[in-house]
Amino acid sequence: MKADPSPVSQPACSGPQASPLSYEQAGVVYDLIDPVKVSAQHAAAATARHLAAHGFAEIAASRGESAYVVDVGPFYLASIVECLGSKAIVADEWAALTGQSCYDAIAQDTIAMAVNDLITVGATPLIVQAYWGAGGSDWFTDAARAQALVDGWRRACDRCGVAWGGGETPALAGIVEPGRIDLAAACTGIVNPKERLSVGERLAPGDAIVLLDSSGIHANGLSLARKLVERLPQGWLSEVESGLSYGAALLAPTVLYSPVTEALWQAGIAPHYCANITGHGWRKLLRHAKALRYRIHTLPPVPPVLRFIQHHAGHDDRQAYSTLNMGAGFALFVAAADAERVVAIAQAQGVGARVAGLVEEGAKELIIEPLSLRFGDDALKLR
Amino acid sequence: MKADPSPVSQPACSGPQASPLSYEQAGVVYDLIDPVKVSAQHAAAATARHLAAHGFAEIAASRGESAYVVDVGPFYLASIVECLGSKAIVADEWAALTGQSCYDAIAQDTIAMAVNDLITVGATPLIVQAYWGAGGSDWFTDAARAQALVDGWRRACDRCGVAWGGGETPALAGIVEPGRIDLAAACTGIVNPKERLSVGERLAPGDAIVLLDSSGIHANGLSLARKLVERLPQGWLSEVESGLSYGAALLAPTVLYSPVTEALWQAGIAPHYCANITGHGWRKLLRHAKALRYRIHTLPPVPPVLRFIQHHAGHDDRQAYSTLNMGAGFALFVAAADAERVVAIAQAQGVGARVAGLVEEGAKELIIEPLSLRFGDDALKLR
Repeated sequence: MKADPSPVSQPACSGPQASPLSYEQAGVVYDLIDPVKVSAQHAAAATARHLAAHGFAEIAASRGESAYVVDVGPFYLASIVECLGSKAIVADEWAALTGQSCYDAIAQDTIAMAVNDLITVGATPLIVQAYWGAGGSDWFTDAARAQALVDGWRRACDRCGVAWGGGETPALAGIVEPGRIDLAAACTGIVNPKERLSVGERLAPGDAIVLLDSSGIHANGLSLARKLVERLPQGWLSEVESGLSYGAALLAPTVLYSPVTEALWQAGIAPHYCANITGHGWRKLLRHAKALRYRIHTLPPVPPVLRFIQHHAGHDDRQAYSTLNMGAGFALFVAAADAERVVAIAQAQGVGARVAGLVEEGAKELIIEPLSLRFGDDALKLR
Repeated sequence: MKADPSPVSQPACSGPQASPLSYEQAGVVYDLIDPVKVSAQHAAAATARHLAAHGFAEIAASRGESAYVVDVGPFYLASIVECLGSKAIVADEWAALTGQSCYDAIAQDTIAMAVNDLITVGATPLIVQAYWGAGGSDWFTDAARAQALVDGWRRACDRCGVAWGGGETPALAGIVEPGRIDLAAACTGIVNPKERLSVGERLAPGDAIVLLDSSGIHANGLSLARKLVERLPQGWLSEVESGLSYGAALLAPTVLYSPVTEALWQAGIAPHYCANITGHGWRKLLRHAKALRYRIHTLPPVPPVLRFIQHHAGHDDRQAYSTLNMGAGFALFVAAADAERVVAIAQAQGVGARVAGLVEEGAKELIIEPLSLRFGDDALKLR
């Protein structure tokens, strides 16, 4: 299905401001972070040799992927820690305005950040650990909010079939801002059997690209979304569409994709590669190092809140698709013959999906045909 | 060896202030956190059933212990996430005063928080994931500081023989205070062979208690230590002992104890139980649920910085030993016949150790004979 034939159409509300709002203006400067990331990656890679003393070895191809994989004999071990980011601030401001606590959704977002990354390598998530760093002991005095966090965390674990192992609830006055909470999740899983491993070896020309729908902004791009609210006369209460305010739309929880990848395996399908569409938007489709062309022929529908952000930030499609998920929360690269079954299996799990493109021989690039966009090899520098 | 025969002696410096400084005054109120912890623990426990779908099961006895353990067939999997706490603020203030970046030590502290907890259950730490949540992208513009963090992280991984799998370096303006960083580590390990598991089943009367020396405050009690500096006319530069200032003494990195537990296993010794002495100080010796008496007959030397804090905070021994590690960073509960070998093996790894006490039949209590202190079952409520 071809979706959203008029991708530059505007929502029925006030026009964009004169000056576009960049991601840098929103306070996120990837260039300052990335050199440290690269230095850390080199130092980290040098520690892999320690595994040999235990009779184990890393899967080197998982370095630079979304989760780290170690061969421990009968199966592979995968692990990760992921941060929610600044979405909790939106929940706090929304609660101050409306009295509604959305920390159950925020909990799901946090777990999604970890689980959706972990499953990219073919892992079954088994254990989640909670990291709830509060700005002070008094964060927990709002018992309803704290309970919503607990309840949402548990429901997300139930949805993903993971055991909540425990966690850490430090009071971090002086580090975390008063009234705020720094949320993260660590996840451990296994790739079992080993042929489920998907770190890109099987990614090849001819593969189909299946995109799984997002529910909205998920948990990336929130700095931009928060900066934008300053421009909106009605702030968080601005209507994204009839009956849906900006604040509520942003707080839709991130889709948990592990039920889809588990159902795929139950059906005998192991994706050749997966990309979790988070920071850097659709540039994440260029994640793997291989020289391959990714040609997108069909776009998912753009969630109204993302179209709204694009419009009010004054972003063209290039900026929007290189920053936000624009309706695609997760990409599965699968054998073309499996593509339609993959879509059906995802839909059976309640997750919208479509065959959106294909992998071709060629220079490393992403071509989004319906928008006449091209992103080259230089568009994403993660390693 | 009997250590420190005059445990209430004062350092040769100005006397304590008139009013004692409580932990609550320092901003840490455990009572506000603990009900949420309990609610979270119940919710978490209810998720364990999900492991059955994968053919696995949790080790229920690990609930409430320092790391969560799952039986995955050939071995047990152990996992954890742990936060540094507020020690990085001391490093920041020390750097502002002296120009010295201690983030290499801070990195070790962070890894120690995770690794020293993970090993309590008998696990060999395999993989560490880094969580570095900065107050903004600009935290990483101080390249020397960022590199110290990278270098220290790597060295701590080398010391523990773990692979640094990767991590997360988010810029969290609005959540983390400007100029600060929220540091945590996730660690995954295995208990292999399974008889290494130490969640307390074998803890029994007659066991010896071996205490491993701490290097100073480690990473617990820093809120108190920072509050205290306001009372010191010379602040961070106050002399703890000749040539050692308060700031530098606090920044001694936490001892990494996994080389000791690994060396013990190499020598055929599996501790019956372990306790990482962190928050709640020596009350952590009461960690296990069993009704047992822990009798301490020999004290480790108290690091000068801890004696200094006790003195200036106006704490009596009960307060000091129930808050700070007072020289004991880690407790090993071992068969009495192994105790002296355990001490020798620890010392061979460069970690001071002593046979400090024994486990007896009796009501649950901790008796610190040299100080005439008793802590009952009500002294530590963790579950």
